[in-house]
Amino acid sequence: MPMDLSEINFRHQVDGEKLVIGIAQDYQTREVLMVAYLNRDALELTLKTGKAHYWSTSRKKIWLKGESSGHLQEVKEIRVDCDADSLLLKIKQKGAACHEGYYSCFFREVDSDPDFALKIIKKKVFEPKKIYGE
Amino acid sequence: MPMDLSEINFRHQVDGEKLVIGIAQDYQTREVLMVAYLNRDALELTLKTGKAHYWSTSRKKIWLKGESSGHLQEVKEIRVDCDADSLLLKIKQKGAACHEGYYSCFFREVDSDPDFALKIIKKKVFEPKKIYGE
Repeated sequence: MPMDLSEINFRHQVDGEKLVIGIAQDYQTREVLMVAYLNRDALELTLKTGKAHYWSTSRKKIWLKGESSGHLQEVKEIRVDCDADSLLLKIKQKGAACHEGYYSCFFREVDSDPDFALKIIKKKVFEPKKIYGE
Repeated sequence: MPMDLSEINFRHQVDGEKLVIGIAQDYQTREVLMVAYLNRDALELTLKTGKAHYWSTSRKKIWLKGESSGHLQEVKEIRVDCDADSLLLKIKQKGAACHEGYYSCFFREVDSDPDFALKIIKKKVFEPKKIYGE
C-alpha cells in the first residue's frame, strides 16, 4: 500500500524538483546537525528504512546520508511544522554529520566583533581526507 | 559601513528572491521552533537590531517576527553551516513561535502506526484568535 503523505507540502522547488526542508537534530542533545531537502521518494525511503535519505540538489539524486562515509542517521522521530513544508528529523548520528569533519554542519558563527566574519567555534571529530580520500 | 556578508551564500530562490534558510532554536532548551527564509536585508536587519527578521515568500516582504503578535525573537547567536546557505538562530522567544498557538511550529509528528498520519503532540500556549483576531 503506498504511503499517504498527502498532508506533506512539497512546496520548495529547486530545478523543478518538489521538496520539503529537512532539519536533522540529535535526538538526545538536541544539537542541530544539518539541513537538506527531501523529495517525496526520499521521505518514503526514510520512513521505510529508518535511515535519513535526502535529495541532493547538486547531484539531482536521492542520497542516503552516510552512504560513502558510513555516517548514517538513524531516524527516531519526524516532526512536521505548521505549514507541513519542513520536517524535523530527530536522529541518532553515527560518526559526524558534516563532510568537513565536524559533528554538526553549524560549526561557525557570525562574529559581530568587528566585522561579521565567520568564526569556527567547534573542533573536528574526524579528518575528511581519511574518510572520503584526497 | 555596509556589512561584509560575502561569505553567506543566498543560494535558495523563491520567485527570484535570493535567500538563506533560517532555523530558530531556543537558545536555552535547544528546542527547534520554526524555519523561514532570510534575504540579505532581513539578515542585516537581524544583525543590526538583534531581533529576528525573515523574508515572507507569500507576502514578498521582510517581516519582523512578532510584529503583529508581539512574539519577538531576541537573537543571541547566529551559526552558519558548511555551505553557508543555512543559518541557525539561537533565540530567546517571547510568547510562542507558531501562529497556530504552539511554542514551536513543529507540534506534530509523523505517526507510523498505522498510516503515517500527522498527530498533534504538543499543547497550545495561546489562543490565536485572541492574538490575531478572528
